[in-house]
Amino acid sequence: MTEFKTIGRPTPLVDGRAKVMGATRYTPDLQLPGMLHGRFVTSIHAHADLRGIDVAQALAVPGVAAVLTAKDMPDITPSSRSRLLLARGRVIFAGQPIALVLATSEAAAEDGVQQIVVDYAPLPAVVTIDDALAENAPLVWPEGVPSGAGEAGAHGADIGSDAKSKRKASNVAGQNSFSRGDVASGFAEAEVVVEGTFTTPMVHQSAIETQSIVAEPNPLTGGVTLWASTQSPFDVRKEVANVLGIPESDVRVTGMAVGGGFGGKNGLYEPLVAAAARAVGRPVRLVLTRVEEMLAANPAPPVRIHLRLGARRDGTLTALSGNVHLDNGCYPFDLAGFLAFMLASFYRVPNFSVYSTDVLTFKVSAGAYRAPGAPSVVFALDSLMDEVADRLNIDPIELRLLNAACPGDPMADGDPWPSMGMREVLEALRDHPAWKGREESRARGRGVGVSVGGWPGGTEPAAAACALNRDGILQVHVGSVDLNGTATGFTLMAAEVFGVAPDQVRVVFSDTDSAPYSGASAGSKVTYTTGAAVVQAAREAKQQVLSIAAEEFEVAVEDLEVVNGAVRVRGLPSKAIKLGDIANKAMRFGGRYPPVFAQGRIAQKATAPAFSAQLAEVEVDRETGGVRLHRLVVVQDVGRAINPLTIRGQMMGGATQGIGWALYEKMEYDSQGQLLTGSWMDYAVPNIIQTPAVFETAIVEVPSENGPFGARGVGEAPVAPTAAAIANAIADATGIRLRDLPMTAPRVLSALK
Amino acid sequence: MTEFKTIGRPTPLVDGRAKVMGATRYTPDLQLPGMLHGRFVTSIHAHADLRGIDVAQALAVPGVAAVLTAKDMPDITPSSRSRLLLARGRVIFAGQPIALVLATSEAAAEDGVQQIVVDYAPLPAVVTIDDALAENAPLVWPEGVPSGAGEAGAHGADIGSDAKSKRKASNVAGQNSFSRGDVASGFAEAEVVVEGTFTTPMVHQSAIETQSIVAEPNPLTGGVTLWASTQSPFDVRKEVANVLGIPESDVRVTGMAVGGGFGGKNGLYEPLVAAAARAVGRPVRLVLTRVEEMLAANPAPPVRIHLRLGARRDGTLTALSGNVHLDNGCYPFDLAGFLAFMLASFYRVPNFSVYSTDVLTFKVSAGAYRAPGAPSVVFALDSLMDEVADRLNIDPIELRLLNAACPGDPMADGDPWPSMGMREVLEALRDHPAWKGREESRARGRGVGVSVGGWPGGTEPAAAACALNRDGILQVHVGSVDLNGTATGFTLMAAEVFGVAPDQVRVVFSDTDSAPYSGASAGSKVTYTTGAAVVQAAREAKQQVLSIAAEEFEVAVEDLEVVNGAVRVRGLPSKAIKLGDIANKAMRFGGRYPPVFAQGRIAQKATAPAFSAQLAEVEVDRETGGVRLHRLVVVQDVGRAINPLTIRGQMMGGATQGIGWALYEKMEYDSQGQLLTGSWMDYAVPNIIQTPAVFETAIVEVPSENGPFGARGVGEAPVAPTAAAIANAIADATGIRLRDLPMTAPRVLSALK
Repeated sequence: MTEFKTIGRPTPLVDGRAKVMGATRYTPDLQLPGMLHGRFVTSIHAHADLRGIDVAQALAVPGVAAVLTAKDMPDITPSSRSRLLLARGRVIFAGQPIALVLATSEAAAEDGVQQIVVDYAPLPAVVTIDDALAENAPLVWPEGVPSGAGEAGAHGADIGSDAKSKRKASNVAGQNSFSRGDVASGFAEAEVVVEGTFTTPMVHQSAIETQSIVAEPNPLTGGVTLWASTQSPFDVRKEVANVLGIPESDVRVTGMAVGGGFGGKNGLYEPLVAAAARAVGRPVRLVLTRVEEMLAANPAPPVRIHLRLGARRDGTLTALSGNVHLDNGCYPFDLAGFLAFMLASFYRVPNFSVYSTDVLTFKVSAGAYRAPGAPSVVFALDSLMDEVADRLNIDPIELRLLNAACPGDPMADGDPWPSMGMREVLEALRDHPAWKGREESRARGRGVGVSVGGWPGGTEPAAAACALNRDGILQVHVGSVDLNGTATGFTLMAAEVFGVAPDQVRVVFSDTDSAPYSGASAGSKVTYTTGAAVVQAAREAKQQVLSIAAEEFEVAVEDLEVVNGAVRVRGLPSKAIKLGDIANKAMRFGGRYPPVFAQGRIAQKATAPAFSAQLAEVEVDRETGGVRLHRLVVVQDVGRAINPLTIRGQMMGGATQGIGWALYEKMEYDSQGQLLTGSWMDYAVPNIIQTPAVFETAIVEVPSENGPFGARGVGEAPVAPTAAAIANAIADATGIRLRDLPMTAPRVLSALK
Repeated sequence: MTEFKTIGRPTPLVDGRAKVMGATRYTPDLQLPGMLHGRFVTSIHAHADLRGIDVAQALAVPGVAAVLTAKDMPDITPSSRSRLLLARGRVIFAGQPIALVLATSEAAAEDGVQQIVVDYAPLPAVVTIDDALAENAPLVWPEGVPSGAGEAGAHGADIGSDAKSKRKASNVAGQNSFSRGDVASGFAEAEVVVEGTFTTPMVHQSAIETQSIVAEPNPLTGGVTLWASTQSPFDVRKEVANVLGIPESDVRVTGMAVGGGFGGKNGLYEPLVAAAARAVGRPVRLVLTRVEEMLAANPAPPVRIHLRLGARRDGTLTALSGNVHLDNGCYPFDLAGFLAFMLASFYRVPNFSVYSTDVLTFKVSAGAYRAPGAPSVVFALDSLMDEVADRLNIDPIELRLLNAACPGDPMADGDPWPSMGMREVLEALRDHPAWKGREESRARGRGVGVSVGGWPGGTEPAAAACALNRDGILQVHVGSVDLNGTATGFTLMAAEVFGVAPDQVRVVFSDTDSAPYSGASAGSKVTYTTGAAVVQAAREAKQQVLSIAAEEFEVAVEDLEVVNGAVRVRGLPSKAIKLGDIANKAMRFGGRYPPVFAQGRIAQKATAPAFSAQLAEVEVDRETGGVRLHRLVVVQDVGRAINPLTIRGQMMGGATQGIGWALYEKMEYDSQGQLLTGSWMDYAVPNIIQTPAVFETAIVEVPSENGPFGARGVGEAPVAPTAAAIANAIADATGIRLRDLPMTAPRVLSALK
């Protein structure tokens, strides 16, 4: 890494100071003249016919300007969750928005909500996978299941499954399967077979900032301008345009600073708010309360995985069979197939057969949450891998190394894995003092567990632009929202390529009208795709600068170099021109050179998968069942560490969310579909005291072929293996295997007994 | 023109509907949370020492938050008018801002202003050119004249004059001269010599919207965001950064819709408002009242030209000598040399000698106003040309054709004229029915006069970007403010090049952080420079689209064409893909093609001069001296008429302002430097009833070498010859020659007597 001047240096976030000083503006900070505040009337039933909504009393509340219901909304096919808008005739989950009260203040809107009388005719609801699949179960979509959200595609890769989705009048939203070889003979070959059913619950992304949107209509054009806490301004633009039935060029979306997204802010209520603003002809602001966020956003789905693994005596896997059921909630999410895909891709298995079923229930619909599905898959897969190791008395890391997929190995769909470092992260963990010293930990009564998991990574075309200002600063213009330090990473990469110090680079995000296209800040792809476009644009900007200097000095471009903020002739340090002076020559009346303005355009053809291996060291209180996580080691292949500081932050942040999966978090519903955990008083997000005292990260760099400087996305992988590592550590400490997340103290205690 | 599909079609302004419907947002419409309104305390003396400013009473006014004076401003060298900020120690014109009262409303600020007590020690002031140049005249800048604004450069071309500016302790801001051949022998050769002294007054740009600025400080970075009614966001960015002493990358300027600029909005009070916002840490809004706009903005300067012309019997000019004095007001404007340049460039004269002097007086400083200096120059030159024609009994158009400069002829500085159509506009006017039928008009007691004049045109590097959206709309991103239909012109040009209908193009202006660089919307250069960048970007975008389609269809790019919003294979109309579908392939998860995102970068090396020939038909009331303009014919070479509708609007608008110069407008000062015409009750801007009943335009197209499709800038030329044509028409009607503008009824009456 000594070849690089800026990338690889731990660098604080460029926007960190503004954030900690309170200067960053978030969507809820916006005040538009004439703006109305929205507050939902939400369904109290999980399933009911709506017989009537009496809004008269609400309209009499001072400050209430309007009460909108489905009849004020475009009557469109609900072909996505965000197109449900306001419930039309029937509600299908408790918490579903039925009406939107608009008032001059949030308090007045809330007062209005209290005055709304909804006449429900309650209907039977099913809220679990088994109940939903039962004969004669009430159907969420009796007239046919709408097309799915395609979240698998949006977060992983297009999956070419064997079976196409089936659509009939049932609560089955879709089914997929993958297979290879002969599973029966595979298991016949096996000398050890392990098997289990694993469940992971509905968990919430739990961003500090709730869903927040402001929309302003343009009464003249019918267009709308939105400011939103969103990971994906361009997707919001498209969806709002589609819902309103206008060209996307008439929708302008500014992606505001995001107070946490984690997959949950890829567009949800923006079309509703835009339609509301159009309906009343005034700006409308909707900021969900925490309760609404829990009731009516888009948390991660409950998953049940039945898995069976067979291995030879030497540990080589011979067969895998799996069955995934994913509770989509009320709207098709189409993710189960991707779980099946991951199940059969992470390890080399010659014979496998995996099935998946997306199931509809009368609950809030599911959304993406950091590496969607991966924590569930790895929890199942790596719990059983440890059982195989146990049964065969093989070192668990060696067993994984023996079976880990390598670049070129076929994934479940037969496509080869691109370059990736599953093996390398395992090797690094094997060499880590925490693993080498595991016997000492055990001697202290602790259990040590490991796991490995990852994220295939996504791709999406992206563009970027670079301009040089007269102060010598390189301005980098991108359309991707910064969730996790990508602006800082772009700064380092552009500085590296352009040849200046990072403080001479500014990254600008604007809006969908003027920013170069980028996809959602999701799928661990911003650095990999938009970053590559930034590198290309910065390289081109440098060429433009050199070509101006070459003309000024009458030398060849090859004889020039950028040093200390100036272009100079190699070997003639006195012959130099400052970058700002070059810009000034191209940005003034009568100037003879075109402005320095460069573009980058990227379409990555392959993904850049990222793997993380983790080690957990736990102590289990046999009296209470409480699990104390003493140590967590997070090893990750990041391809190239552009900014080790933010990467370590991502690794620790992901693993901390993994701790939540493992030990604390669950959205609990009663049998009627009523959410029992509707606030952070009832729903346990890990706090700083729940993180391990010893929290270590180790960066591995297996360069990706196409990433900028070899970088891979880093955001999602670290959440994948944490729960499995902790489960394996609990098993190591206690001999008991928990197959349901979260592994709360009561559950552990009950298993211990 | 039949080869073109979109350019050349008269097209209403793309932003016209929003403007007439009241949907356009102007700077004064902005409301920022916590914003303060500013109101000036202006000097009541043209020259005085400031002994003290008592703000205590003002601060007690409810709503007043602060009163700023020079001590709250950066103490910088006043090296531009806008750097005077608030008067420091001394005032140098009546109307100069001394303090800025900031309050929660404009009314409260105004109340505060009334409570300010300024202690002046009045000093003698000089307010005319002759008084300012007199021995022992009080000096505007006794400690040395600051460097000039360089407006000549900003509106024409760099002028290489013989003599460099002289700077000493005097009221002379600068002097220039140009000469060629031997003037004495030139006049000796002449068979007729005419001579005169011409004056044109201070006139105001009279935009409907006054100077309007909002600035918001960023307390964390020290940076500032501005929204301004400005022709030049990038120049404002630079000037504000320089005044505040921060990098320009920390200043973000949004050019708002401009309610009229005409040269007067290239940056004036933005640094003051930015400094004020920083001083109080709150957003500050300054919207000048009409009186402040008249008192303290930057109107066109008073000019005096002494001119002598010699010609042979056949009409060939043999010699020209001239002396230009330009009253800069209190700050150097450096324009006089450019007037001298134009005087000696428009006609071929083998022997000439022209001098110019920029003079400082205790009045508001001058600014640019549509073709700065050209109306004055053409008034002098073409009045004398008519006298030559008269004396030699030569047809005035033929005389002009005989002497008109042609492409390749040397300008005053020896550089050759680029392609231009001075001759062609004269020929078109010669063939116009109004000229052919002039005897009939004369028979009705009217006078007919002609004139020709133009504008050399400016250049400035510019960039532009184009992106294709999923709705098939091509988004064009530029940094130039639309004053006069440039967005509509860009729309037509981009549509032409890209191969779509104009409604499939959107032009986006953003701000200096994200927009491609463009210079000021001034100098008749936006279409010529930024337009060329737009054409280049649209062409490149089309190539990108074709290359994606070529890969999709597996055909060569050459076999593809864009027809009806789709790319199709030539000869195979069934094999087609919609533009929106191409965009969608490049703007979606897993897309294999990079987004369509193209740039254009232009640095024009030559200008594109524009000439207008005009004919005025007048009737003079011999009882009142009132001049009735019956007919005005405006012929102009526009290179290529991108949008004839807006071009005709520009031609008529420019000529209407020329009518103001000719007959009505004058800012009158008394001997103490007090403005006597401080409102539109006292200052006569022509109204619709002052425009001619018959107002005709004729477009001539002599393509420029480098302009997009051959286009030239059109904004400035049409104001140049109007006053001269009207003066010549008055002379034709009455035999009297008026040499002072405006030719008001009392002046005409007095001359008639």
